[in-house]
Amino acid sequence: MSELRKDPVVDRWVIITDDPALSPSIPLSAPQSQDKAFCPFCRGSEHLCPPEILANRPPDSLANDERWNLRVIPNRVPFLVIEEDLKRHAEGIYDMVSGVGANEVIIETPHHGRRQSAMDREELENLFWAYRDRIIDLKKDRRMRHVLIYKNSGKPSGATIDHTYSLLLALPIVPRDIVDELHGAQKHFDYKERCIYCDIISQEIRQEQRIIAETNTFLAIEPYAPRMPFETWILPKRHSCRFEEIEPKEVGDLSVIFKEVLAKLDRALNNPPYNYALHSAPFDSAYDRYYHWHMEILPRISIQSGLEWVSDLYVHSTAPEDAAHFLRNIFM
Amino acid sequence: MSELRKDPVVDRWVIITDDPALSPSIPLSAPQSQDKAFCPFCRGSEHLCPPEILANRPPDSLANDERWNLRVIPNRVPFLVIEEDLKRHAEGIYDMVSGVGANEVIIETPHHGRRQSAMDREELENLFWAYRDRIIDLKKDRRMRHVLIYKNSGKPSGATIDHTYSLLLALPIVPRDIVDELHGAQKHFDYKERCIYCDIISQEIRQEQRIIAETNTFLAIEPYAPRMPFETWILPKRHSCRFEEIEPKEVGDLSVIFKEVLAKLDRALNNPPYNYALHSAPFDSAYDRYYHWHMEILPRISIQSGLEWVSDLYVHSTAPEDAAHFLRNIFM
Repeated sequence: MSELRKDPVVDRWVIITDDPALSPSIPLSAPQSQDKAFCPFCRGSEHLCPPEILANRPPDSLANDERWNLRVIPNRVPFLVIEEDLKRHAEGIYDMVSGVGANEVIIETPHHGRRQSAMDREELENLFWAYRDRIIDLKKDRRMRHVLIYKNSGKPSGATIDHTYSLLLALPIVPRDIVDELHGAQKHFDYKERCIYCDIISQEIRQEQRIIAETNTFLAIEPYAPRMPFETWILPKRHSCRFEEIEPKEVGDLSVIFKEVLAKLDRALNNPPYNYALHSAPFDSAYDRYYHWHMEILPRISIQSGLEWVSDLYVHSTAPEDAAHFLRNIFM
Repeated sequence: MSELRKDPVVDRWVIITDDPALSPSIPLSAPQSQDKAFCPFCRGSEHLCPPEILANRPPDSLANDERWNLRVIPNRVPFLVIEEDLKRHAEGIYDMVSGVGANEVIIETPHHGRRQSAMDREELENLFWAYRDRIIDLKKDRRMRHVLIYKNSGKPSGATIDHTYSLLLALPIVPRDIVDELHGAQKHFDYKERCIYCDIISQEIRQEQRIIAETNTFLAIEPYAPRMPFETWILPKRHSCRFEEIEPKEVGDLSVIFKEVLAKLDRALNNPPYNYALHSAPFDSAYDRYYHWHMEILPRISIQSGLEWVSDLYVHSTAPEDAAHFLRNIFM
């Protein structure tokens, strides 16, 4: 029998049904890499990209030369640009903000075709440090309210280049998903004087049903009301509202659990396309007590029901307990 | 220069940018119809479907015989079933409701391959009366809180059968998109003592920039902050919170404007896949003063940016004023 489950933070419903037609469709073989004749993110193409904003490179190398491990560059055609004046204005009942912001690309490794699950621990640590450093830098611009860091991997996820990269948007507004989480977390805090994500973590550790992986400082779970089969969250056990306050020990642990989770998903779902985003508090310190940063990973393997677009209601047939059991039992 | 626009009801942001890569990708030719060897929704297949719940048929025909103009049947593999007990229970901080509800299919016409834009006025009126009649019938079940009626047209929209049909879900919960609209409309009403949708209608009529079509009782517009290029809303000018209270004159007008809008979208976008949903108040009468039913149509032609999945932030390059200007100037 099917059931309706509600996400405890944002009140989003999902129908978990028995219909086998709504099982994930897992491709039989991994999607082909694009022909590697030319890639703008590979070593040797640096001069074809805008100049780097940040890079991880040996001390004796020069900015924009070929010796780098990670590079951050502005998006060639940015959604938003930093050089505009921030104007907020009304048009009757409507509100508009000028397109001020930053739109950057984080080229995660020089190795073309390397999936994140195959990146080594040092590469992943460099990636997370780059996330942190860019947030801290962009935060200095007082016009910005939020930095969104996200990932498109594979064409169905929105990726346009077949070389692993992350995307960053510094925004003068806060995206709705984050606002909804803030509202939900605040409501819970007002009522119970506890962080709702801390409550989720302790219940998940107690129940053990939806855990995929765990380290001293992180927990990876299938959420109770997943939008899609195999949706996975990684949460720090320590209450912390913003990613940029991550500690060195946590960066190490995050690299370990992130690699384990991605490798399990890749194995289970045959190198699926996926998206993820860092959910971190806006810059305003009002959120410190009740928000809790985390990472949400969405493998893009499910069949569209139409419902997700017309009502923000989701339907599929993969209970998170089953997905977690399956993933837990994949040993790498 | 790009800009950020906020939907006035649900506070959802969209980035309207200049990037030509984010223009809609319109297929050069209409998607091929599936081979019409067998269709479960065509005349002659009635015995292969579950027995009809409602039909529009001549007085001398019999239930489930071949002489029908429109049929409503239960979904063969329903997401939710009416014969279960409604149980609401908690699992720690999580909430669950048993899968009680109805899941019906409205076969809109016996004519295979007829798009909604080609249906005649009588067929469309029958369709809207069927929507109304099913809502009124399902409302009698006091366990239900909401009926969602929606449409998937074309495979990319989630349609599984190539014969025009609508879908209905009677739910013991209210989907999040509707809850968000109710909250937004209530906030506006508490502050201004006016319906926000009535305010939108009067501003749109005054500004004239985003109107596509108009009748005595309906207005079709491109919304101020569209999630996708050519997103279109049809709103009744009369304040009314629920679709099932539609008046006979309005059903006639809705058929006219709906056909006009769909025909314009089909012409402009080369028979695109699309979704739509009726946004109507939940059964609880608390919403009567501040909610306003309407229809939201989403042509599924845009390129995924990844952002819509990870943050409920949308990005594309089609300003609604431009889309409206384009659609207004298509004469049928």
